[in-house]
Amino acid sequence: MFDYKITAKNDRARTGIFSTPHGELRTPVFAPVGTQATVKTLTPGHLEEINASLVLSNTYHLYLRPGDELVREMGGLHRFMQWHKPLLTDSGGFQVFSLSQTRKVDEEGVTFKSHIDGSIHRFTPEKSIAIQENLGADIIMAFDECSDPNDRDYIKQAMERTHRWAERSLEAKTRPDQALFGIVQGGIDPTVRIESAKFIASLDTPGIAIGGLSVGETKKEMHETLDVVTPLLPEDKPRYLMGVGTPEDLINGVTRGIDIFDCVLPTRLARHHSAFSPEGRLNLMNASFARDGRPIDETCDCYSCRTFTRSYIRHLIVAKELLAGTLISIHNLRALIRLMENIRIFIADGSFVSRAPELLRQWSNNAKRAENGAV
Amino acid sequence: MFDYKITAKNDRARTGIFSTPHGELRTPVFAPVGTQATVKTLTPGHLEEINASLVLSNTYHLYLRPGDELVREMGGLHRFMQWHKPLLTDSGGFQVFSLSQTRKVDEEGVTFKSHIDGSIHRFTPEKSIAIQENLGADIIMAFDECSDPNDRDYIKQAMERTHRWAERSLEAKTRPDQALFGIVQGGIDPTVRIESAKFIASLDTPGIAIGGLSVGETKKEMHETLDVVTPLLPEDKPRYLMGVGTPEDLINGVTRGIDIFDCVLPTRLARHHSAFSPEGRLNLMNASFARDGRPIDETCDCYSCRTFTRSYIRHLIVAKELLAGTLISIHNLRALIRLMENIRIFIADGSFVSRAPELLRQWSNNAKRAENGAV
Repeated sequence: MFDYKITAKNDRARTGIFSTPHGELRTPVFAPVGTQATVKTLTPGHLEEINASLVLSNTYHLYLRPGDELVREMGGLHRFMQWHKPLLTDSGGFQVFSLSQTRKVDEEGVTFKSHIDGSIHRFTPEKSIAIQENLGADIIMAFDECSDPNDRDYIKQAMERTHRWAERSLEAKTRPDQALFGIVQGGIDPTVRIESAKFIASLDTPGIAIGGLSVGETKKEMHETLDVVTPLLPEDKPRYLMGVGTPEDLINGVTRGIDIFDCVLPTRLARHHSAFSPEGRLNLMNASFARDGRPIDETCDCYSCRTFTRSYIRHLIVAKELLAGTLISIHNLRALIRLMENIRIFIADGSFVSRAPELLRQWSNNAKRAENGAV
Repeated sequence: MFDYKITAKNDRARTGIFSTPHGELRTPVFAPVGTQATVKTLTPGHLEEINASLVLSNTYHLYLRPGDELVREMGGLHRFMQWHKPLLTDSGGFQVFSLSQTRKVDEEGVTFKSHIDGSIHRFTPEKSIAIQENLGADIIMAFDECSDPNDRDYIKQAMERTHRWAERSLEAKTRPDQALFGIVQGGIDPTVRIESAKFIASLDTPGIAIGGLSVGETKKEMHETLDVVTPLLPEDKPRYLMGVGTPEDLINGVTRGIDIFDCVLPTRLARHHSAFSPEGRLNLMNASFARDGRPIDETCDCYSCRTFTRSYIRHLIVAKELLAGTLISIHNLRALIRLMENIRIFIADGSFVSRAPELLRQWSNNAKRAENGAV
């Protein structure tokens, strides 16, 4: 279990198979986000059909609602949401720092107010692991402290605390059927990142996550940080770049040796009527699509593109029909999953490095609009 | 085309096959409502899976948005919404009277304000047929005037105008691949209903609709009206009871010789978290379902019941996840479609009349709550 077999390498890019209790995960992989035990507006059947292989769910949200004890009583998260392939839960650390109100950090843990009802809660590394054991995902995360990327002193302190919390997380873990990943923190300071990468690598967890990126730094800073971190990580363990990203980020991440990604972008864009396409990101509410008889993407094999016109999807958006979000979510997720399928093929046949610039060019319209902050 | 073959009869209840350009329709049939060219939150794939065979869409809504000309340009309604089995459109008459603002009726037609943007529009029988020809459903409706069921003088006038408009609708029709149904009106006054039934029957349309019921009258009044009307209709043509109804209404309608039904009830209930079940209508938001590991209905074969627990669906509702509406819609629609499948079997084997009281008992909890006005 949790064996990671690299089947091909192209420079730093790798493709391989990570074994989990719910089946093998082919990497590099993009995980759709199912924050509240559902990838918004999609059934597990839809996820199967787009060939999703790993789904992420959020510990913070599930702890608050419906409660991790309830999920455990109902047979665990796989059974609860009826997703029988690999699942990953985060530690709740990021949401505590980004969503909750008036948090208070101390050496033991974090006290915070629920964003739902203002009730007071406390997460410690031990609590985070206990929740994640109740949920029962295949891959779970050490509890970490996410720092403000612009506060250098805090970054170092938070990194050191993250290391102590990683050790406590490992100590607290009891289930043998879950892979606990340590998380490298340290903002964009190379010295701090190096220290963190070395320490987390020394813990010998079955995989290693890289946190604290895609939180406001530039793309250049993200790439430089990855260039510093991934060479210090063991070759034979999967690397997970948390909360990233755009199609461009995926290509750049794979180039730098990343194996696992997750991001809400494709489903969030879908709910704002924005679809990935070879022409760039399309705002399907635009009047120019009213009589457009083409699918979102003529090259796409998803249900939405095989079935519906832009004209119909635009009508659904204008008429405020929720099916629009479902259809665009299916397409946007399939677009990124298909990108990863192609990347795996390219690494396997040795062509990834030479193809990467062309892939980046193909996706540049989509990426550019994302960087400009447009939905 | 539009041949109706009755294959078995049980007293007044009938089962048969209505041939349309998009395939055979087995009656009695319940049609899910896809007001705006989509059965809310469901894909055509979901509709196939619950064995839906006829879908209704609304002329008033599609005329306003996206426009019937656009639908025609995009290949017609079947292609636009990707539903390749039989479709039915209403005439727009009912919505003009129930949804639009400040309508003005004259002998020629109705002038009304859009409920969307207040713009002024005019429907005549000729316009309604032209719109329905642009949409291209298999079954279309004559333009009718829906009257206030409590205003006796108006009811008779409206009925007479409906007859003149039915003749004009027939005159205006040009497409041979659409079956135009006349509509019997007349409120709950037997004298007026008899006159209307005889007149509409004389028009020799390939099917006959009964309008103006389920608009506030009692169940007893609805049944008495059907008892007056259906014996006056030709045996060899399908009878469509518009906008009806509850499971109890379907059983009572079939008993009185009705072949086609449609109603928004199952999908509307679903969006309000209410599900049909053998225990009666369930409000799945209720805290008692938080740890209920059973499906909505253990006897149901739908995707939702085969896959998910009440506990999970309740979580989706509480967490405001739209998937809840999708899953309950699938179940509620399947429940009524399965009821109709069973009724067809019972009529075919001659047991319907003897089984009807037991069927009504089984569904009485669900029906009762509906009559009490609870969602």
